[in-house]
Amino acid sequence: MTDTLWHKPSAGHLHSLLAAYTVGDDPTLDLALLPFDIQASKAHARGLKKIGILTEQEEDRIFHALSDLNVLAKQGKVKIEAKDEDCHTVIEHYLTEKLGPAGSKIHTGRSRNDQVLTALRLFMKAHLAAIRSALLELAAEFLAKAEEHRALPFPGYSHTQQAMLGSLGHYYASFTEHLIEDAEFLQSVLTHIDQNPLGSAAGFGVALPLDREGTKQELGFSRMQINSLACQTSRGKSEAAVLEALVQIMMTLGRFANDMLFFTARECGFFTADDTLVTGSSIMPQKRNLDGLEVLRGYGSVVMGHQHAIQGIAFRLLSGYNRDLQLLKKPLMESLAIVTSSIAVAGLYLQGLTPKEETIRKAITPAIVLADIATSLASEKGIPFRDAYVLASAHTPDAPDLDRNLRSKISMGAAGNLCLEAYHKRLAALGK
Amino acid sequence: MTDTLWHKPSAGHLHSLLAAYTVGDDPTLDLALLPFDIQASKAHARGLKKIGILTEQEEDRIFHALSDLNVLAKQGKVKIEAKDEDCHTVIEHYLTEKLGPAGSKIHTGRSRNDQVLTALRLFMKAHLAAIRSALLELAAEFLAKAEEHRALPFPGYSHTQQAMLGSLGHYYASFTEHLIEDAEFLQSVLTHIDQNPLGSAAGFGVALPLDREGTKQELGFSRMQINSLACQTSRGKSEAAVLEALVQIMMTLGRFANDMLFFTARECGFFTADDTLVTGSSIMPQKRNLDGLEVLRGYGSVVMGHQHAIQGIAFRLLSGYNRDLQLLKKPLMESLAIVTSSIAVAGLYLQGLTPKEETIRKAITPAIVLADIATSLASEKGIPFRDAYVLASAHTPDAPDLDRNLRSKISMGAAGNLCLEAYHKRLAALGK
Amino acid sequence: MTDTLWHKPSAGHLHSLLAAYTVGDDPTLDLALLPFDIQASKAHARGLKKIGILTEQEEDRIFHALSDLNVLAKQGKVKIEAKDEDCHTVIEHYLTEKLGPAGSKIHTGRSRNDQVLTALRLFMKAHLAAIRSALLELAAEFLAKAEEHRALPFPGYSHTQQAMLGSLGHYYASFTEHLIEDAEFLQSVLTHIDQNPLGSAAGFGVALPLDREGTKQELGFSRMQINSLACQTSRGKSEAAVLEALVQIMMTLGRFANDMLFFTARECGFFTADDTLVTGSSIMPQKRNLDGLEVLRGYGSVVMGHQHAIQGIAFRLLSGYNRDLQLLKKPLMESLAIVTSSIAVAGLYLQGLTPKEETIRKAITPAIVLADIATSLASEKGIPFRDAYVLASAHTPDAPDLDRNLRSKISMGAAGNLCLEAYHKRLAALGK
Amino acid sequence: MTDTLWHKPSAGHLHSLLAAYTVGDDPTLDLALLPFDIQASKAHARGLKKIGILTEQEEDRIFHALSDLNVLAKQGKVKIEAKDEDCHTVIEHYLTEKLGPAGSKIHTGRSRNDQVLTALRLFMKAHLAAIRSALLELAAEFLAKAEEHRALPFPGYSHTQQAMLGSLGHYYASFTEHLIEDAEFLQSVLTHIDQNPLGSAAGFGVALPLDREGTKQELGFSRMQINSLACQTSRGKSEAAVLEALVQIMMTLGRFANDMLFFTARECGFFTADDTLVTGSSIMPQKRNLDGLEVLRGYGSVVMGHQHAIQGIAFRLLSGYNRDLQLLKKPLMESLAIVTSSIAVAGLYLQGLTPKEETIRKAITPAIVLADIATSLASEKGIPFRDAYVLASAHTPDAPDLDRNLRSKISMGAAGNLCLEAYHKRLAALGK
Repeated sequence: MTDTLWHKPSAGHLHSLLAAYTVGDDPTLDLALLPFDIQASKAHARGLKKIGILTEQEEDRIFHALSDLNVLAKQGKVKIEAKDEDCHTVIEHYLTEKLGPAGSKIHTGRSRNDQVLTALRLFMKAHLAAIRSALLELAAEFLAKAEEHRALPFPGYSHTQQAMLGSLGHYYASFTEHLIEDAEFLQSVLTHIDQNPLGSAAGFGVALPLDREGTKQELGFSRMQINSLACQTSRGKSEAAVLEALVQIMMTLGRFANDMLFFTARECGFFTADDTLVTGSSIMPQKRNLDGLEVLRGYGSVVMGHQHAIQGIAFRLLSGYNRDLQLLKKPLMESLAIVTSSIAVAGLYLQGLTPKEETIRKAITPAIVLADIATSLASEKGIPFRDAYVLASAHTPDAPDLDRNLRSKISMGAAGNLCLEAYHKRLAALGK
Repeated sequence: MTDTLWHKPSAGHLHSLLAAYTVGDDPTLDLALLPFDIQASKAHARGLKKIGILTEQEEDRIFHALSDLNVLAKQGKVKIEAKDEDCHTVIEHYLTEKLGPAGSKIHTGRSRNDQVLTALRLFMKAHLAAIRSALLELAAEFLAKAEEHRALPFPGYSHTQQAMLGSLGHYYASFTEHLIEDAEFLQSVLTHIDQNPLGSAAGFGVALPLDREGTKQELGFSRMQINSLACQTSRGKSEAAVLEALVQIMMTLGRFANDMLFFTARECGFFTADDTLVTGSSIMPQKRNLDGLEVLRGYGSVVMGHQHAIQGIAFRLLSGYNRDLQLLKKPLMESLAIVTSSIAVAGLYLQGLTPKEETIRKAITPAIVLADIATSLASEKGIPFRDAYVLASAHTPDAPDLDRNLRSKISMGAAGNLCLEAYHKRLAALGK
Repeated sequence: MTDTLWHKPSAGHLHSLLAAYTVGDDPTLDLALLPFDIQASKAHARGLKKIGILTEQEEDRIFHALSDLNVLAKQGKVKIEAKDEDCHTVIEHYLTEKLGPAGSKIHTGRSRNDQVLTALRLFMKAHLAAIRSALLELAAEFLAKAEEHRALPFPGYSHTQQAMLGSLGHYYASFTEHLIEDAEFLQSVLTHIDQNPLGSAAGFGVALPLDREGTKQELGFSRMQINSLACQTSRGKSEAAVLEALVQIMMTLGRFANDMLFFTARECGFFTADDTLVTGSSIMPQKRNLDGLEVLRGYGSVVMGHQHAIQGIAFRLLSGYNRDLQLLKKPLMESLAIVTSSIAVAGLYLQGLTPKEETIRKAITPAIVLADIATSLASEKGIPFRDAYVLASAHTPDAPDLDRNLRSKISMGAAGNLCLEAYHKRLAALGK
Repeated sequence: MTDTLWHKPSAGHLHSLLAAYTVGDDPTLDLALLPFDIQASKAHARGLKKIGILTEQEEDRIFHALSDLNVLAKQGKVKIEAKDEDCHTVIEHYLTEKLGPAGSKIHTGRSRNDQVLTALRLFMKAHLAAIRSALLELAAEFLAKAEEHRALPFPGYSHTQQAMLGSLGHYYASFTEHLIEDAEFLQSVLTHIDQNPLGSAAGFGVALPLDREGTKQELGFSRMQINSLACQTSRGKSEAAVLEALVQIMMTLGRFANDMLFFTARECGFFTADDTLVTGSSIMPQKRNLDGLEVLRGYGSVVMGHQHAIQGIAFRLLSGYNRDLQLLKKPLMESLAIVTSSIAVAGLYLQGLTPKEETIRKAITPAIVLADIATSLASEKGIPFRDAYVLASAHTPDAPDLDRNLRSKISMGAAGNLCLEAYHKRLAALGK
């Protein structure tokens, strides 16, 4: 028989199969939520003290017991047994054991529903902030690489065909810009979910003047999520928005991975990879495989799948809490972990892939400068663009001066005018 | 043989099957893009004039020809033939026909790639702004309904079971809050994509000092998208972010639809529906079906599917333009149209569903007040929460005073403390 | 006011916005369903005659009127007006107009629910059969190409790196096998949905001894779908299964497209493309782009998105008909059309891409034979595999004999033992 | 430094972050694959003996060592350390440790690529067979319930409104039919993937006359997957097809869950739930929540998300092995586990939900028989259907005889003609 918060002995024994089925992966997943649940529990206790539900002494004892539990958790000494189900029960059991009946008074005016909402909100905020920071760090690294290779000609592609000349710096700078944008989008999602749900109880509030403004400030939320039912029905929506921020990042990183798998194919051979980045094959020792990039690319699809699971889980549910929502935790947590490690892996490859200038220059087709010649004819001689092409096609040089061509591309954001200082400014403004 | 911008006669005849396959739905879809492409073309022409590519007179003639074309388009007199492929070709053909070789000079320094990017960006901005406005309007309507029914008891559910008492005003207010949040999220996405891609040409810029700052201001973009390759590789990412904003809206509206299909089922019978909102059955005349709500709910899944398609289309492509990206237009445009009409339909049902107070009151189980009694015992007598339950269970009233219960729920955002003025303030601040 | 089957004047006027919203794209989509609805209507009429509901004369008149309508439809003379809503109403209106009250007797014992189910089932069957046939045709073309190029060495890749030697024939044969498998999977899906739903009425049958066995045979269904509610609740499931068959095909064709975009990149240059298959660029005349392959690849993601929409639409609905289901038609029909044209496009590219043998041979790295040398050392000298590698690595030839290497790969299904006759046999057995 | 099969010391040390990133969850997941990898390794060894690579004695020693390892695995004594990476390395390390160099000879003529393919294929087959058996068992239980409650009137719904009368037996029989269909669809997927990939090595075969027919028979595959590259490129496609079979099941079970959450809502109250199936609420002791059904419903969306992850992972990859494919294992394995437990959970609820006949009968609206009266008037008096409605509407009885109405629905598959014997026959034919 499970010994959980909501399951009264009088209700009989929950079938063991069902107990396992409904608990699912919570005992593992909730270890990561525990510190945030403890933090929120402290804030709730302080709020109860303010409105006279807890005495100063009771609140003090609860506060210290929660701190002790947090220390134990950090030391890896807290296990969530299947019978405990989740971190919320662990906290209540711990408090009751330590403090007796007084320990259970913390449950006044709250519900597991707003407890998990609050812990998840804090969890997401912390992880998003860390990811944002890592993104800006990676953007800065791409920026440094863009500066280093700003003058190295690099073929620009469209339709998987060499189209016009760029530089490796131009290529890297495109990622700098995306990563900054991704960080800003993520920040806007973080801001969007930065609302206090604590005090919404089971979705319908309580007959107590809970100090919701106080817990908001204590927990560092920037806004109040007012309507108690809206707090509940925001589950799944918050997670879906967070996932979109993560998808955006994986679209950037996955493109880098996909590009580099092409650029390092023998047919391109544009980079050499550091020995610490390659694996070999059990059957083909000559292979130098960039497995990390492949896994990164694949993880992009995993995160997209998780987003769609999340949307599906939360859709077509009657307003209010439904147990389906528990399943949101796993795809959310896995996705945050995937993105965190993927940013680090992308950074490794950025640093460990060294361009082979001579190979790259040789690989560039002379025709790559054709459109530029035509553009220049058109602007200098004032003839229509398409007529200029005909002229240009007849005079494509065998070995065009790539460096001069690069320098000629002076439109803002082109290879001859990268505007890198703009990214420096943005990164500085964003705290990097 | 197709007579398109990029397909030179010398390249031979594109296979008719391929021509149809690659053109796809563009002739239809691009009609909606045409006005935005015209707007961007004017800005580009003005920029070319500033850097001396077009004379003042040339620019003037192009400007007026574009204005004429826009008038024709508004009059429904412009058709995009399959052989024209898309709106970009239509514009160039029109200008060349009207102005001779001078008309084709507008193509200097730009590419279909930044042309479609810019037109789509303007298109998305316009539609998102309209949707945001409609969302805030709907939020205000829910707010008015929340005020009207703030004192009408309504069962609050969890696990599809009556859980605690709320009011219909509390229920409606939860949608007010969601709709405002959705509008703000949509605004943050709009801000995110509000960047000028014009001047990025085919993704690699040009050898001209294009007046990108000028076109940015002319077109009303708030920021510059600098790196020309990043402009290209943002395709699909912008659309995916927009789709997430739309998914968030459909999660809100779809929940309203799903709830109301439950609340209007005979087993609940909480609302009567206006005759203009119901259809009957060919075989069961007694049926009063709310088909619109079902379609609304189904469209939620359609929009989610479109987001998934968009993410997939844009993923795992080599940096730079790839024709796959053309397929982004349809799911984007359809989703914007779906959300626009769905907001209107939700508004119809909000107005046309009248609550049946007596039925609702009768349907509420007395046990719904149990948790409140326990909470009150716990807080007043200072006994642990779970002990209070045991006491409360023994004294559940047969006919609890629902109105008093409602009033007792005073925690911020609960039915007795809806804080509706906060929404009035937010709506006012947002321009409603 | 809409004048539709189920909407009695007494129910008042359906709001025009709602009428448009709920009708959606049916007037267009249903034109494709009309012939199948006519076919099913004939079978239903014959069934009603058998059980005495229609007289022989009535049935005869209905039959001929339906045939007339079918002729009109083939001539493009039938339009579905928005007020008609769908093909079912068109049929009933036509019959009533032609035959008076007798025309409406065909509605006895059926409902729009089993009408649309039956028409869709027949529609899917017809399209799947045509797609299957096209798939087998394409498989045969790949087989012919495999035979033609069985001896042409071609690099085999893993991790986007040259791994071991294959032949172009080996590569093409892999598609032959996939296409045959896809056709067989599609056939199993076709068999799965090949069930008669006619006679299930609105999902609950009728108080008439409908001749369901008779309609089953008349309509060519191989099995009976017995339970009338199961007929209704199979909507969405049938479509999802069909979509999986289509996704499998798009995974095959999309891979071919993606491969060929790599193999025709300048860095590989393994094929020349026929002029009828390439487009140029408006700004880069040297480009020879394979847009059709890119669109094909992108359509793969579109079909996956449609499958996701379909699953979502049909999930979490109360057993029985729900109007959400109407939205299944569009993603289904679009996907069938996409796959049909994509098979044709893949065939064009297969025929129009000519391998450049010398380029291919030159591009193959000598190290590609290393694993084979090791394998041979291991088997001939009986030494452990990994030790053999060390030996082999020291003796990689500068210019290995690729043809001999190819011939040496004699394991079943390897390049030296393609077993093409097995595919001939399978194709013959499958009717090609 | 990791000590894995493919990573030669000379290649240097793989970065620890990358090692962890690329290994991912394999150490956990591969424990489930180990027995199947052992089985396939035995078959491979036997094949090597037949073609003279292994002596009889060598093969015998390998066979017994593998058996020993299998025993250890069953006893839970095998751990896959992160440094071992996966089950394939565990096997090779074990053999080499036990048998010295002879142990490593098993690696001749195979690769990790066909090793994992074969193990996964066997794994999927075993799990699908078990799921099929459980499905048929559940179908039989629904059939028994359908017989038990064949005469119990039950409202039939469309548009979430009572539409026409059915019986609880009719309702249950609809699930019997779906479950049998799901089992047959799953069987067709099982047949589809039941092909021997062993001997395809790294995707390009080997220069050895591997006994692929022998391993096919030894491993119980019914067909040969011939082309070695097609073996590789079927990864992801097999998994996607399997996932569709699982999605079909979850659509059936999820609908049952969703229905029952409606039917057990207080507003319906059609069933009482066994105490072992309900949980309470921490804050609302009166609640009797059916959490298991909610989790089941939510898992439907999880499995759909996994299918889309799988499709995405395997799409747009260059033909041949790519490490992205490793990520297919987790969504596949989780989905199989989810479906297995969900079938069991559905069975618990089927048994533990007892219908409340009186409540159900009272809840049925008299108008539910209206369409039947009209149908009967139409068929008996030969008047058009819609005219019959007008007559019927005027004479709806206040308390219609539901039992007689039920019996009157005699069309095949309606509540008065359930044809249950047909399911008995099908189940018997399918081995139940």
